[in-house]
Amino acid sequence: MDTQNHQLDAVKPYVIGVDLGGTNTVFGIVDARGNIVAQDAIKTQAYKTAEAFVEAGVVCLTPLIAQVGGMEKIAGMGIGAPNANYYSGAIETAPNLAWAHDCVVPLAQMFSDQLSSLNPHLSAPLPVRLTNDANAAAMGEMAYGAARGMKNFIVITLGTGVGSGIVVNGQLLYGHDGFAGELGHVTMVRGAEGRPCGCGRTGCLETYCSATGVARTAREILANTDRPSLLRNKPADEIESLDVAIAAGKGDEVANEIFQFTGKMLGEACADFAAFSSPEAFIFFGGLCKAGDLIMRPIVESYNQHVMPIFRGKAKFLVSGLMNANAAVLGASALGWGE
Amino acid sequence: MDTQNHQLDAVKPYVIGVDLGGTNTVFGIVDARGNIVAQDAIKTQAYKTAEAFVEAGVVCLTPLIAQVGGMEKIAGMGIGAPNANYYSGAIETAPNLAWAHDCVVPLAQMFSDQLSSLNPHLSAPLPVRLTNDANAAAMGEMAYGAARGMKNFIVITLGTGVGSGIVVNGQLLYGHDGFAGELGHVTMVRGAEGRPCGCGRTGCLETYCSATGVARTAREILANTDRPSLLRNKPADEIESLDVAIAAGKGDEVANEIFQFTGKMLGEACADFAAFSSPEAFIFFGGLCKAGDLIMRPIVESYNQHVMPIFRGKAKFLVSGLMNANAAVLGASALGWGE
Repeated sequence: MDTQNHQLDAVKPYVIGVDLGGTNTVFGIVDARGNIVAQDAIKTQAYKTAEAFVEAGVVCLTPLIAQVGGMEKIAGMGIGAPNANYYSGAIETAPNLAWAHDCVVPLAQMFSDQLSSLNPHLSAPLPVRLTNDANAAAMGEMAYGAARGMKNFIVITLGTGVGSGIVVNGQLLYGHDGFAGELGHVTMVRGAEGRPCGCGRTGCLETYCSATGVARTAREILANTDRPSLLRNKPADEIESLDVAIAAGKGDEVANEIFQFTGKMLGEACADFAAFSSPEAFIFFGGLCKAGDLIMRPIVESYNQHVMPIFRGKAKFLVSGLMNANAAVLGASALGWGE
Repeated sequence: MDTQNHQLDAVKPYVIGVDLGGTNTVFGIVDARGNIVAQDAIKTQAYKTAEAFVEAGVVCLTPLIAQVGGMEKIAGMGIGAPNANYYSGAIETAPNLAWAHDCVVPLAQMFSDQLSSLNPHLSAPLPVRLTNDANAAAMGEMAYGAARGMKNFIVITLGTGVGSGIVVNGQLLYGHDGFAGELGHVTMVRGAEGRPCGCGRTGCLETYCSATGVARTAREILANTDRPSLLRNKPADEIESLDVAIAAGKGDEVANEIFQFTGKMLGEACADFAAFSSPEAFIFFGGLCKAGDLIMRPIVESYNQHVMPIFRGKAKFLVSGLMNANAAVLGASALGWGE
């Protein structure tokens, strides 16, 4: 039985990876080494219904699939998308998607049906798996990136929000309902003084340590003090995390303090995460990581200061191995290979 | 191969469970339904060396094993012990054990060697597995208790300390180094005002929500206020969590407030744990649970108030299903059945 499966796999050398974002949806055909051998994209929001979106996706994919020898060469498909539930294969009421903001869209099933019908001679329908962006990033790190060979690690994405993908015993942690791994929403500042969060609560890690949170910290310091800073060269409400990184790189004291503050909190959060799953590594991913040592050094210092003594100095702190590749497509494609 | 294994299992209907505590070490022979069919104990600290302790354990076990038909009826052995590492099968520098306070004791191997030598005709050495008390409790809940049929749950032990056993995808979470699941040591009060913890840091959940922490909260309130309370009938340094439960049961306002405070913090902690592993249930175990609704109601209220909206109302909050049995022996014995 095993031998037979391996023979089948050998003639299906590709998977499809899909990065479904708020603006673009990128489709890639990926080989076992993590090379994207064909790629194209459609506009995510140009369609009124999920049916129309899937149809456009299949039209976009058809020539890419033909290019690698047809559907019989495709082992599976993985999709990284907002509000995606791995267990149900559905996008569940995603506020930022026009065709899914008030409903549950069984996207995995829809793509599987449409793509399988391209070749009526397939022995089984195409397996399609769906997960959220941060989980897809974790799959990508394990298959092709900084976590190759690791069985216990946590990917933390520092973008507009803070996301996470947690791997334990070599498996993604989905939890009972498919929504595990929301580490951007652990509470770091309890009580009334916590910053309001998009999730409806206050004090979440994300409100401080996302790119948005960093810009907010900058605006707070500039508004509450008279300290000189390069950041004052721009209207406060236009400051982005990249501006803070550039100013810090030039030695700006306020900007450096902002990274110290952000890194300290991330280190404290990781110390709590270690008490939970004791990972081999924390892998950081996303725009904020481009600040390099400015953010990574305070994280590691704070972690080793705040973590339980038995964990001290054990975990690796890494920047994603996929930052320069099309990480989101690769990550999603890793799901296509199956368990 | 599978069929053969099942046939072998069928003739090995028992496992050995060992609860290795600071005072007593209890040995039990357990059947597949969770009945302890034979049991005896030795004093843990009556021995100067680990070798002498293991020898005494084997002497204690020999008649129990004979009673169920000899070593060929025993499928495996599980030990729950302080500072135990599942991966290495060793107790690693346990401060409270005379024969292990400054060394690493490969206890699983030692018991396996000694017990296997009782019957030179065994086809393979006895598998012996070791884990800490809270993980053993989680195994016990899954095999015989409140978590039967669950694949994602967290056991929180409220005793002298706060321990935890985390199960994800039906497996105990050991992490990269074997020490995952130290949820008593997530930081609940950050900065200088956090209570000092035995782990060397401050503000850990354990310092507030263990039985010891509850007594400490009582002493703080009594010392810092003039409020009348039944708890003043006892010298402050003799107050235990049981006194607080008894006073609360009698309607004492201060005592009730202490449980509200403790439950609120446990609920906030569980809200963070949900963001991590989204368990089907939180299962509470240990002396403090005897307070029943006094502690459980504030936990659930606080959880639903503090958890991310997507998790609200989903998790079950249960009291251990093993409170009246010899839970520690049963829990450890569950390890004896293997993966």
